[in-house]
Amino acid sequence: MRIAPPDLALASRLFAELRAAGFDGNGITRDTYGPGEQRAHDLMAETARGLGLAVRTDAALNLYLTLPGRDPAAPVVMTGSHLDSVPLGGNYDGAAGVVAGLAVLAGWCAAGAVPARDVTVVALRAEESAWFPVSYIGSKAAFGLLDADALDARRFDTGRTLADHLGGLGGRPAMLAEGMPELRARAIDCFVELHIEQGPVLLGAGHSIGVVSGICGSLRYRQARVTGRYAHSGATPRMHRQDAVVALAELIHGLQSDWATMEAQGHELTLTFGQVNTDSLQADLSKVAGEACFCIDIRSRSTETLAEMDRRIRLSAQVLGATHGVVFDLGRQSGSQAAEMDANLRRALVQAAAAQGLAAPVLPSGAGHDAATFANAGVPAAMLFVRNAHGSHNPDEAMDAGDFAAATGVLGQVLAQRAGLAAAPR
Amino acid sequence: MRIAPPDLALASRLFAELRAAGFDGNGITRDTYGPGEQRAHDLMAETARGLGLAVRTDAALNLYLTLPGRDPAAPVVMTGSHLDSVPLGGNYDGAAGVVAGLAVLAGWCAAGAVPARDVTVVALRAEESAWFPVSYIGSKAAFGLLDADALDARRFDTGRTLADHLGGLGGRPAMLAEGMPELRARAIDCFVELHIEQGPVLLGAGHSIGVVSGICGSLRYRQARVTGRYAHSGATPRMHRQDAVVALAELIHGLQSDWATMEAQGHELTLTFGQVNTDSLQADLSKVAGEACFCIDIRSRSTETLAEMDRRIRLSAQVLGATHGVVFDLGRQSGSQAAEMDANLRRALVQAAAAQGLAAPVLPSGAGHDAATFANAGVPAAMLFVRNAHGSHNPDEAMDAGDFAAATGVLGQVLAQRAGLAAAPR
Repeated sequence: MRIAPPDLALASRLFAELRAAGFDGNGITRDTYGPGEQRAHDLMAETARGLGLAVRTDAALNLYLTLPGRDPAAPVVMTGSHLDSVPLGGNYDGAAGVVAGLAVLAGWCAAGAVPARDVTVVALRAEESAWFPVSYIGSKAAFGLLDADALDARRFDTGRTLADHLGGLGGRPAMLAEGMPELRARAIDCFVELHIEQGPVLLGAGHSIGVVSGICGSLRYRQARVTGRYAHSGATPRMHRQDAVVALAELIHGLQSDWATMEAQGHELTLTFGQVNTDSLQADLSKVAGEACFCIDIRSRSTETLAEMDRRIRLSAQVLGATHGVVFDLGRQSGSQAAEMDANLRRALVQAAAAQGLAAPVLPSGAGHDAATFANAGVPAAMLFVRNAHGSHNPDEAMDAGDFAAATGVLGQVLAQRAGLAAAPR
Repeated sequence: MRIAPPDLALASRLFAELRAAGFDGNGITRDTYGPGEQRAHDLMAETARGLGLAVRTDAALNLYLTLPGRDPAAPVVMTGSHLDSVPLGGNYDGAAGVVAGLAVLAGWCAAGAVPARDVTVVALRAEESAWFPVSYIGSKAAFGLLDADALDARRFDTGRTLADHLGGLGGRPAMLAEGMPELRARAIDCFVELHIEQGPVLLGAGHSIGVVSGICGSLRYRQARVTGRYAHSGATPRMHRQDAVVALAELIHGLQSDWATMEAQGHELTLTFGQVNTDSLQADLSKVAGEACFCIDIRSRSTETLAEMDRRIRLSAQVLGATHGVVFDLGRQSGSQAAEMDANLRRALVQAAAAQGLAAPVLPSGAGHDAATFANAGVPAAMLFVRNAHGSHNPDEAMDAGDFAAATGVLGQVLAQRAGLAAAPR
């Protein structure tokens, strides 16, 4: 059984229209529950109607584009991703997964293929926590897992609540507050998300696609602080100082070694101090710094690894506090749960790639993705990464059309197998 | 010949009036060439007139309060300090030296003592570079050494130029532009400045006063920057990062060792990173930092020591740049010249302290002072430090009245010797 190829011309047109609709003068901005995201949803819904797909939304305005199968009662095969972007972001982070899914279904529609079960491309809402300080709003809402409190979260730029933004677009915040699920794990056969890689691993290794082993969880201190004592820079000898900047530098320095040591022991993790700031009013060229704020982001697929690095951070902070006469206050800890990708789907993706002559290395996702929500809800889930230069969350995201074509071919193959349109390799 | 004691009641009253006039609700603010500084100058001029001293100002509005001596042609004995404060500063930084001088002369006046030569208390203008980005404005102007460009410098809060501020109070900026000196080194016997210590050394060592060996020069990078590459915190492995924050932490860490090493080799210096900031718009919890700004302040009495630390900073920045794939740009270098204090005056101060039963340790001044301008202009200059808790440049400056009394007594003794009112010890 030969599978109809994805409609790459459609994909190309959709990327161009998304870019035109999302360009803000400097980058791509598809604001979560705002006009930017909505334009992208409208484009996908209209395209799906043109293909003859069934179109529906849920209370959170996630968009479901379905090619009906022969058995409407059978668990549905799902693919897709999100359509929102960070402010001043790129065109591919999120959107590539929705476009790929539509390209696959468009190819099947053109060939008149009818799958054994429903196949749905989902365009999820609100994946980027840059707008509202909440992770995975759309996918959590779909499973009835969104905390009711989250509806009161305010968008950083408008100051309006999530409930207000959602209601303004026709969504139903009251239903979300009740935790009414649109999706149930047992009614879903699988979820396969295609997404650009947000790091440089595939680029460095020379592979166009990769298969995700698991999605990292995180452990974060957003508002950590070290407090010493302001003092005259010239008049305060080295041994009399309680220097917040020096103590913080020693913390960062020491934890780089800890990170390397843990990697040598087989741990897989990242450790990042993304923001470091002295006080804009009190700090001065001619003062020893009495205070510095910073944040810490640890990511790993292993809860034990997160805990081990956390233990080392706390220990270092305590020791350095005593040595330097400063006090570290790490503040409130937050984080997200790690998710393992389904072994069968991973294997199917690697084999489908091999059938196209592509080696698809297996790598963890340090970034969070909606596939984690599906996996943790009990849905067999997997992710396919597409090589991408310059990272994500910036206007320079650069996904090669050839890499996207290869990835979409692999995605289509695996979806076809799950939907009974192709035989799985033995 | 017994010297009349300083009028400490006058000193106490002046400190109280200065505090009342300068209190801004939270701290003491005597703004340079503004109403705060002017009120303090008015108070000192009025007090001096009440004592029968001759009162005059120069083109920069430095205030000279003179007890005439028997020989008006003989080089004048000078003491004093500045009256301005930083914003939200303390009551003693600067003012203590002027009040002490007036207390000494008030004691002499009360006793009817007539010195062999003029004795002048000078209240200098604009010592705190917090307001205008220029060092030692008042004392430089007095010696005709102020760069004409400095008159165009703008006060950070008003945005008005130095010339404008000065002219508004009745000063003569045009004369300053011509470099017309009010003071000539050969007409000055000596300058002795009493000042609170701005560090914790005397407090830690248990001494009420100290004699300054020399005033540190500085070498500064006000606007240094390290540039790496922003990247996703979870998706960018350790070896792929160009992390500006980590590179800066390593710079600070490494230079702490260099500082300790140099001290062990006999160098005397301080090294301070008072401000460290990631970009407020681009940096994020979930990004590897692509940029950080920072400043460096090195101080030492030795030009060679400044140069050696500078060499080490540049070397570290180069090595770390290569290791971390970042670029350090230290920016424009600025600084001030170091000054040695006069050996005879230092000895006289130590002996006068000993005669009062006080050990007066000799220590460098890491902070800059107007005495450096006098010394570098060729005037024999010295400084007496008074113990002070909580450092300076903040509302918590805490000088003990007993320590001030002891210091003023020592100051009066040395001024009396230089003015022919007391015999110098052999």
